[in-house]
Amino acid sequence: MAITILNERELRDCVRLDEETVDAVADAFTALAKGGVVMPPIVHLHMPEKNGEMDVKTAYVPGFDSFALKVSTGFFDNPKKGLPSLSGLMNLINADTGQVRAVLLDNGYLTDVRTAAAGAVAAWHCAREDAKVAGVLGTGLQARLQIEALMLVRPIEQVLVWGRDGEKAKAYAAEMSERLGIDVQARAHGADVVGPADVVVTTTPSTEPVLLAEWLEPGVHVTAMGSDSAGKNELDPKALAKADRLIVDKREQCIKLGELRTAIETGTVPEDVAVTELGELTSGSAVGRDSAEQITVCDLTGTGVQDTAIATVAYRKATSKGYGVSVET
Amino acid sequence: MAITILNERELRDCVRLDEETVDAVADAFTALAKGGVVMPPIVHLHMPEKNGEMDVKTAYVPGFDSFALKVSTGFFDNPKKGLPSLSGLMNLINADTGQVRAVLLDNGYLTDVRTAAAGAVAAWHCAREDAKVAGVLGTGLQARLQIEALMLVRPIEQVLVWGRDGEKAKAYAAEMSERLGIDVQARAHGADVVGPADVVVTTTPSTEPVLLAEWLEPGVHVTAMGSDSAGKNELDPKALAKADRLIVDKREQCIKLGELRTAIETGTVPEDVAVTELGELTSGSAVGRDSAEQITVCDLTGTGVQDTAIATVAYRKATSKGYGVSVET
Repeated sequence: MAITILNERELRDCVRLDEETVDAVADAFTALAKGGVVMPPIVHLHMPEKNGEMDVKTAYVPGFDSFALKVSTGFFDNPKKGLPSLSGLMNLINADTGQVRAVLLDNGYLTDVRTAAAGAVAAWHCAREDAKVAGVLGTGLQARLQIEALMLVRPIEQVLVWGRDGEKAKAYAAEMSERLGIDVQARAHGADVVGPADVVVTTTPSTEPVLLAEWLEPGVHVTAMGSDSAGKNELDPKALAKADRLIVDKREQCIKLGELRTAIETGTVPEDVAVTELGELTSGSAVGRDSAEQITVCDLTGTGVQDTAIATVAYRKATSKGYGVSVET
Repeated sequence: MAITILNERELRDCVRLDEETVDAVADAFTALAKGGVVMPPIVHLHMPEKNGEMDVKTAYVPGFDSFALKVSTGFFDNPKKGLPSLSGLMNLINADTGQVRAVLLDNGYLTDVRTAAAGAVAAWHCAREDAKVAGVLGTGLQARLQIEALMLVRPIEQVLVWGRDGEKAKAYAAEMSERLGIDVQARAHGADVVGPADVVVTTTPSTEPVLLAEWLEPGVHVTAMGSDSAGKNELDPKALAKADRLIVDKREQCIKLGELRTAIETGTVPEDVAVTELGELTSGSAVGRDSAEQITVCDLTGTGVQDTAIATVAYRKATSKGYGVSVET
């Protein structure tokens, strides 16, 4: 038997943040809502003596011919060694035989794309259809990708950005204005980003709120994608209480790892607060927004079904191009 | 950056069931006992609609320069397709940077070896030094490897074997007698294997006891390595109660997945029963046996530290031989 090894360059060439990718991720959420998905809790390996951590995600999704086992590492002393902090790969496993089909050496690229794609899925179902002004808190890679994802699904004409480091926000504005061909402006205060925005994405690793409830105007949609572990928190818990509709990628995960965790722990929302899972929106069993005035908030923690979806797409596209090294096992 | 892909043939050529491997596994248990090991619970993905399952194990072990993330799959309809049921691979991750160092396409070989090596470690510390007669229940691959492992540490002169399928037991006897150059006899009843034996290994996937407490004579050591999930059970729970010393690879795991689970669930031993972890024996903080008359029972469920140990050894030996395919990530 042979397996295929694909590298980052090949994967970048095959898989883009485009409508096809967004559709694949939406299909995965639909599968998650319909049942039959087997998705164990995220494995977290914390190595304090190395200032490092590893997360492992996996999900079997009925109807997909493979499933992914995704490894993400963060070793935060790496920059001192001239290496990126984040790394990772995906093992793609044949869902009919359990045999490894491919190893995708993506260094985290596929995770970046599938994370941004989930933001597009949320905005597609929750943001007002005429959303023109996007706000973004944070200036990193996801601050870039989430806006690109948003532009696939909404007619964005202007982007406002805030970052803890004002210089980075200005650099973001210059770069993204050039790349997207629209007006991008850095703002010194988060309020001046969130207030005027029709749709907001928070993309920081913050451990305390960067978005206050009082900034939220009627009609806004907020996607918070930064919190993916128990220590993180981007949204003022009152923002969740203020929302007319609360959307989550996976309830059980958001209660442990997302904004929902802080909101429940602080008693701002009840433990049994009504939430809508993203898969209920993609499958059509619920709607994200009933009116142009509602405030909607979506809490994304990242799920194994997204990894299975994007790894399956990547493998199909890469092998159809004849990419990869074949290794006899 | 480049990573190394090693295949089964290369790994078989480098890593054998020998003293070096047994020592590496013993060192891993010592590390586990000394603290600092980070070993999350095993991830189990059960896919009933495919008659398949996946287990994922990992452990960070201080002092090892890498750690393994090990994937094992069992898809039990595979034989109908002419494929083996079991498969798997290991990702070897640099413990200083989190970057993937190698992918070991071992198809489960390294797991087979490290599992047998743990049996040798248990026998080294618990079986009588003059143990000459080995008994084995089960006729599969581990029934073979566990006896080979045993012969590394004890002067075994005769092997007695029982299997549910008597023909397989006879085939085992013929094959192993030839391979080991000693007397190997199939017996029709488990009692006739266990009674005369100085050391017994149970190696079945049974869900009900194959070894009864009344068969245990003074001085015998039993290693039960078959139970690694909540449904399995090889030992009569009374056998654990009858033991003078109960040894486990990892207490928390054995309570959930091993013989200890059944013994506690049936009320045969108390929930807080005194057990000795294998690492306490390898580190010298406890002894396996005080006298030639004691009965000792060791419950092995398989641990991530064993995977990290063997994967690290395999990588070191394979790269020193120039093996593997190097792939740019």
